[in-house]
Amino acid sequence: MRFISMSRRMLVLTCVIGVTAAVAAASVATGLISGHDRSKQFVAQVDPSKPKNVILLIGDGTDESIITAARNYRLGAGGRFELDKLPFVGDMTTYGLKVGAGPDYPKAYVSDSAATASAWSTGRKTVTGRISQGPSTSDAAPGADLRTVLMAWRDRGARTGNVSNVEITDATPATAASNINVRSCQGPQDMAQCPAAKKSSGGKGSIAEQLVDNKIDVILGGGLNRFSQATDAGPSVLEYARSKQRYRHVANAADLARADSLKRGPLLGLFAGANMAPRYAPLVATAPPGAGDASARCVGADRGAQPSLSAMTKKAIGLLDNPKGFFLQVESGLIDKNQHETDICGAIGGVAELDEALKVALNFKVSNPNTLIIVTADHGHSTQIVPDNRSGRLTATLKTADGDPMSVGFSTRSVGATHTGSTVRIAAIGPRAANVTGLIDQTDLYEVLLNRR
Amino acid sequence: MRFISMSRRMLVLTCVIGVTAAVAAASVATGLISGHDRSKQFVAQVDPSKPKNVILLIGDGTDESIITAARNYRLGAGGRFELDKLPFVGDMTTYGLKVGAGPDYPKAYVSDSAATASAWSTGRKTVTGRISQGPSTSDAAPGADLRTVLMAWRDRGARTGNVSNVEITDATPATAASNINVRSCQGPQDMAQCPAAKKSSGGKGSIAEQLVDNKIDVILGGGLNRFSQATDAGPSVLEYARSKQRYRHVANAADLARADSLKRGPLLGLFAGANMAPRYAPLVATAPPGAGDASARCVGADRGAQPSLSAMTKKAIGLLDNPKGFFLQVESGLIDKNQHETDICGAIGGVAELDEALKVALNFKVSNPNTLIIVTADHGHSTQIVPDNRSGRLTATLKTADGDPMSVGFSTRSVGATHTGSTVRIAAIGPRAANVTGLIDQTDLYEVLLNRR
Repeated sequence: MRFISMSRRMLVLTCVIGVTAAVAAASVATGLISGHDRSKQFVAQVDPSKPKNVILLIGDGTDESIITAARNYRLGAGGRFELDKLPFVGDMTTYGLKVGAGPDYPKAYVSDSAATASAWSTGRKTVTGRISQGPSTSDAAPGADLRTVLMAWRDRGARTGNVSNVEITDATPATAASNINVRSCQGPQDMAQCPAAKKSSGGKGSIAEQLVDNKIDVILGGGLNRFSQATDAGPSVLEYARSKQRYRHVANAADLARADSLKRGPLLGLFAGANMAPRYAPLVATAPPGAGDASARCVGADRGAQPSLSAMTKKAIGLLDNPKGFFLQVESGLIDKNQHETDICGAIGGVAELDEALKVALNFKVSNPNTLIIVTADHGHSTQIVPDNRSGRLTATLKTADGDPMSVGFSTRSVGATHTGSTVRIAAIGPRAANVTGLIDQTDLYEVLLNRR
Repeated sequence: MRFISMSRRMLVLTCVIGVTAAVAAASVATGLISGHDRSKQFVAQVDPSKPKNVILLIGDGTDESIITAARNYRLGAGGRFELDKLPFVGDMTTYGLKVGAGPDYPKAYVSDSAATASAWSTGRKTVTGRISQGPSTSDAAPGADLRTVLMAWRDRGARTGNVSNVEITDATPATAASNINVRSCQGPQDMAQCPAAKKSSGGKGSIAEQLVDNKIDVILGGGLNRFSQATDAGPSVLEYARSKQRYRHVANAADLARADSLKRGPLLGLFAGANMAPRYAPLVATAPPGAGDASARCVGADRGAQPSLSAMTKKAIGLLDNPKGFFLQVESGLIDKNQHETDICGAIGGVAELDEALKVALNFKVSNPNTLIIVTADHGHSTQIVPDNRSGRLTATLKTADGDPMSVGFSTRSVGATHTGSTVRIAAIGPRAANVTGLIDQTDLYEVLLNRR
């Protein structure tokens, strides 16, 4: 009994000390132990209050495998990303559904960004390619439109933001604030598979039009070519956004830096025709003995006048911060695109961009501890760290920050590479961050983001 | 200020309520949320006291990918294993070293069970193939012998156990209580690569001999053929174990069931000549369109008189439980072996065995809450859940518990499959279980197991 009593007293003391520290500083655990019990430090970081702000950072196609490869390359195997230091960690299931008769749709054990991002955006599983609509009997048959977590925050009076370094009309950012049956219907001239959604047919329009109509305060990313398309009514989506919805449009990093308030209207930054520029020039895996070698390092790519993901994130947070709080989704989307292309440097650069955007969010949190920050992914992907340059269908070798060679393999397709069905890592810090621990599903993440109760 | 005060009061209350519940019941979180904040439940499970008992369960080669495949197959995508319900979750880095000049040995981004298990057994990184010895300039040159965490618990007066369903002299169980330069030196007749370790050369002997000499209270697994080998002194290792170290030997499930105390000496159960029988008959992946199909299910294998991993775990815990506490390592080793063979049913069966052994440990914990239980892996492996039976070099398709087809691919070698360098999942419950959260290294796990401070 003496043992039990002591342990109980210790923990109560821990809690009292701990909460003070958590509210004051929201310090980040190191992840390393050195023989010291971290229970006290851990309890200090549990905060059951409702968050005022939520920042959701998504690495598209970012499972433990590509995170480890990026860590080895950039920091060495013993290094630590910001995302490695977050105190609350769990795994998240990412399966989706296939079109069918319903109501028990077949499971898709490997799904896509549309269905997986729809799951956290709406709290419902859906079929591959579907944007925040429920499942249905075929791709052509629209499912039920579902209100998204971003829209829910908007309707509470919070500000909202949607940031990505790929086309802002691509699947992951699309699910935040649009409802459509097929993900390819990104602009008003891309509606072949979504005829009922056309505005001229009485629908909500393309993804680009819906993002604008849903009054998101800050939209930043690529995809200008979608917004340059003529709407059914004549003017381009961009002209419509400016005239009808009062959006200010910025097109480069310098103009973005000058946008200093939302007083004159919401902000629409479109910095590239399609996807934005990667951080590193490609290193594309090839058949054994593969691309690269024991001395190969990734080479910085020319980004022209485009802002980095962290610059977009910093600007978005600065504009969104207000007494009623905000909801911001930030996607590092090239991690997925570059893995499809078996481009290991592109993917590693995408993880670096994600981690730097997280750092911006964590800096904001220092003076705004009532901010919940979550970092996770939509689905797993193809990259495997393998023993050598003969392991896999397509391989690449790089010299890591340790100075040693690391080989990766891509083998999920005979040409290119594709998603896998693994769970993905989810990590969080801030109010209610403990809810991501253990094993959750992407529909549970919806509840964590919504903070309904 | 009102917001901060309220949150602080709430958490202190939470802690007081929480600890009572934790000490009383050590209940397991469900992992599901349904809109309810779990902070309170979570804090209740943090226990900073020193554990009396430690049970470490290892799934060899068991990363998130094979866990997800096994969950889909056995329970459906929305099902939950016992290991999914553990409250504290983290990722663990698994890199090792390569032989070299030192002291800065080159990193091995993909390592093996010997080096990775040595890391948690000794707190030190070492080279591929090395058993609880430090790194060195070549495989033939022994490194420094390192005292293992099992030996440290033994020296404190605790009881110790070592259980595996592969050869008990295989790398992972070997690292728990032996020191040798090459993992293949499992029996006294296997010493070609370890001449200095031979007893007739004044060394500690083969792995089998060292396991016996290190006075482990309960040794259960496969590997009888190693113990049947003649020692340098003449008698077999098994005869030596019986006569010199007072081991009782049991050879089948019925005899194991009858072993009811350690009073007449420690227990050595050897249930198979080499590795023990798998749970399922093999389903070996083949070139696309691969093995299996949308209606294929795994078929139970004949285990003869061999006990299951959970039966061995239950017996070990029953024998080890004593007032001074115990340290028990349990390995589900076929998960790795079967993935090397691209046998998806074997690997899934191995995950099921791991989870059932965990269930036995959790049942013990109900009346022994001062037990720390950890479930993790030594390294990642090859299995990827892929979109269809054309995705990968070698694929297999099964009907899951959902009734839907799931395909997996193995592509890390042109023949067979091998380890990857991904981090692995680590999950825990019990005293000081919070120390596994975030990102830790396998050498940090040594500190968690040791509970030195």
